Amino acid sequence: MMMTESGPTKRLCPLCVNPLPGELLRTEQWIVIDAQDAAFPGFTRIIWLTHVAEMTDLTVDQRRKLMDVVFAVEEVMRQTLMPHKINLASLGNQVPHLHWHVIPRWRDDVAFPASVWTPGQETRESEQRRIDVQSALTDYHQALIQRLTN
Amino acid sequence: MMMTESGPTKRLCPLCVNPLPGELLRTEQWIVIDAQDAAFPGFTRIIWLTHVAEMTDLTVDQRRKLMDVVFAVEEVMRQTLMPHKINLASLGNQVPHLHWHVIPRWRDDVAFPASVWTPGQETRESEQRRIDVQSALTDYHQALIQRLTN
Repeated sequence: MMMTESGPTKRLCPLCVNPLPGELLRTEQWIVIDAQDAAFPGFTRIIWLTHVAEMTDLTVDQRRKLMDVVFAVEEVMRQTLMPHKINLASLGNQVPHLHWHVIPRWRDDVAFPASVWTPGQETRESEQRRIDVQSALTDYHQALIQRLTN
Repeated sequence: MMMTESGPTKRLCPLCVNPLPGELLRTEQWIVIDAQDAAFPGFTRIIWLTHVAEMTDLTVDQRRKLMDVVFAVEEVMRQTLMPHKINLASLGNQVPHLHWHVIPRWRDDVAFPASVWTPGQETRESEQRRIDVQSALTDYHQALIQRLTN
């Protein structure tokens, strides 16, 4: 086990847990979870199983495999949730275990056009938007699992 | 020319300008620019030349080409600037023309461990960090251009 300066060791890593909260699908290389973000329903996370910090810690082939999953999630998200924009991000400042955020965004969500990490402002529209998205999540998750297991 | 609901048309798009501010390298498919972000020196942007909004608007081959550039930037950034963490993001909420942010992060930068889109707090350390990074930018950009033209 390597000590990293920038974050928890593997043993203490919240993404090395099995199963993870909100887990939708786990393979031998990656896991897809519902991020269970109250402000941004549909927020989906793809986690690389190995405890590494950066994309360039992976081989070229592993990077492609992971990005293929990210783009498959984006595709299904667009088809089923029809967001106005997709946000993709791999930050890992708090948890330096490689993971991707795939976030559906709407012009009337709580933070748009700012990032989901920027303090937002609740409105009647953003509240209604959350309710609408929440009601489509079962369909989205079913389509996602089907897409990723075929 | 398509009207998009989510943002400016191609004609009004600030990323359809040639040349772009901070441009380091322009090919027939993508452009790499120094984002010239005062708070986050080294912040680099990769812009897909065609005015599309999402990664899944590209073909699988185009996605791979673009991500190969993103990862090449990450690689050179790690080697030359040696940041504590790399942040990758493709948001496009403000400018829905496909682009990637590659951001070097340090534990003593103005916002760490929050995102660069989260309001930060200036400290003596973050000020010194910016000066140090700034002084390495010429080497970083030279290495970047060399890597991407070979």
